[in-house]
Order: sequence, then C-alpha cells, then structure tokens
Amino acid sequence: MKTVKDYIRTIVDFPHDGILFRDVTTLFADPRGFRMAIDQLLSPYAGMRIDKVTGLEARGFILGGAVAHQLSTGFVPIRKKGKLPGRTIAQDYKLEYGEAVIEVHDDAFLPGEKVLLVDDLLATGGTAEAGIKLIERLGAQVIGCAFVVDLPDLGGRARLEAMGMEVHALCAFEGL
Amino acid sequence: MKTVKDYIRTIVDFPHDGILFRDVTTLFADPRGFRMAIDQLLSPYAGMRIDKVTGLEARGFILGGAVAHQLSTGFVPIRKKGKLPGRTIAQDYKLEYGEAVIEVHDDAFLPGEKVLLVDDLLATGGTAEAGIKLIERLGAQVIGCAFVVDLPDLGGRARLEAMGMEVHALCAFEGL
Repeated sequence: MKTVKDYIRTIVDFPHDGILFRDVTTLFADPRGFRMAIDQLLSPYAGMRIDKVTGLEARGFILGGAVAHQLSTGFVPIRKKGKLPGRTIAQDYKLEYGEAVIEVHDDAFLPGEKVLLVDDLLATGGTAEAGIKLIERLGAQVIGCAFVVDLPDLGGRARLEAMGMEVHALCAFEGL
Repeated sequence: MKTVKDYIRTIVDFPHDGILFRDVTTLFADPRGFRMAIDQLLSPYAGMRIDKVTGLEARGFILGGAVAHQLSTGFVPIRKKGKLPGRTIAQDYKLEYGEAVIEVHDDAFLPGEKVLLVDDLLATGGTAEAGIKLIERLGAQVIGCAFVVDLPDLGGRARLEAMGMEVHALCAFEGL
C-alpha cells in the first residue's frame, strides 16, 4: 500500500534553483492519500481535549479545515499581514532574506483553550514558532504541532521542541 | 438556534472605506457554526458523483479541505499566480481596478471528472468564473458551485448561472 510519502511529488528548482520542493498537492488530490494524511495527523491526539485547530496560510488551511471538521472543533486561520479584517495581533519572524509578519484576530483564541497547530511542512520552523507565540500571547495553549512533512536538516523540529512543543510529522525528507 | 448567517461578523471599512466586509472567520472558529456550514454546503449534492473538490485561495481552502474530507475525495487548490510548483495553466480575470491571474496544476483534473467548487463568498463571480474555466479547460466538469455567502447585488450568481452553473449559497447579504 502507498504511504503518505509516496503521494508527495518532488519538483526540482522551485521556487528557485537548487531547491527540491516537496509538493503535497498530489497527496491532497488523491482521495486515499488525503484521508490517510488527515487520519495520521490526528492519531497521536485521540482522547485529548482540543478546543480549536489552527493552520498557517495557505496550505495549512486545507489540512486545518479537514482536521477541524474531523474533530468537530472550530478552525482559526493564521494569516499573512493585512489579510484579516478584524482587530489583530502580529508577530514577525525571520526569513532566509529579510522578515515576514503573520497575524491572528485578537479574539480568535480564548485564555485556557487547547489548540492543535497543523501545517503541511516543517522546515526551519520560523513560521510555526511565530504562530505558537501568537496563540500563547492570547493565553491559549498549543497541545501539539502536526505536519505532513519534516525536513529535519533544517532544524525546525529541534527549534519547536526547544520551546516545549510536541512535534508530530508523517514523513521526513533528508537533505535540503 | 443560530443560523450560519448569525455567526458571520461584519467589519466596517475593510479593506477600504465604504465596504462592509462579511467576515466568516467567526463562523469557522465556532465548532457548531463550522460543522453547520460544511453540512449545509454539501446537502444539495447528496447521492451525486463528485470526484474532486476544489477551492479558491485562501479562505476556500479551509472549506474545501473540510468538504473533501467529508466526501472522502481529493482536494485541488486553485491558487494565485506563481504559488504552485508544478506545470500549470493560468486564467486571468478582471478586478475592480486591473487584472489578476489564478492557476491550477495541469494534471490536477482529469477529463470527465466531476468537480465541486467551494468558496466562502460569491461577489462579482469573477474569480469563480476563472476557476470554472480552468477546470473545464482540463476536460473536467463542474457539477456545482457552493458558497457560504452570496452578495446578490454584485451579480455573481447571475453570472455563474449564465455559464450553466448550479449555484448554492447558505445565506445572502443585500447591498454592497
């Protein structure tokens, strides 16, 4: 039987030369692949209290919508700057060159809520770390971070674990 | 009992003065609201063959992921220009000022596949029309277009119906 990793396509030189881009759209487009990914993303959390699911723009929205629906929780989008219409709080983080900012509505998480963060890919962990900070600044607690793909050589897992996070990934690709 | 419409928040003057922005994040964040929205989006299609679900970047990804998971189909993202890593086809469409381009992977839909398109909001219908064209150019067939919110005064429903589409919306807001 195909594994989640088998459904992921590698695109050479995207978004620029020398990058092997791990393309999850082929996983999402396949009915068995997509269901397998959602089921496996959730398996470590069976029996745990989860009040809300959150996902990082934009591929994290696809997974997050499905995961929240499976759990019958609400879903909260963490978005790039300027996209959310209500009052927000913002968090900046470093990119390879320069900085970026993500935001969340300031009433999207309530103090004490238990939150599951999902995204397609864990690379340096910079975006996920910024997302966790946003959630914690609103008084909620991240009970887990679930990814389809881990790129361990980029150090994201170690970075999130150093924050005390539980990291779950369905597969890993070695190298950059 | 609250309806889907009751969960939607209106933000005044976003993204610019004079606009009443219908904010579905408050619907998505509520467990009853989100589940009600997904169930109601799907109710007209019970018993119909649906091979794939597609959604428009970015809020359509949240709904599309949940709807595809509910149906046990695959999900295909229709994205803004330059975001998809593989070979794509592109479609331009008019905005209030200027033009925009959306893309889909050229192997994302197969000839004869039945596709359900979902998005949060139907305004002028320009983005949805461009998405439908992309799907049809790959030989697949759009069997329905499902939206949470219809803004009937902006003419999107009439525009999509003139293309022969079946349009389903959970609620409408009159005015602009």
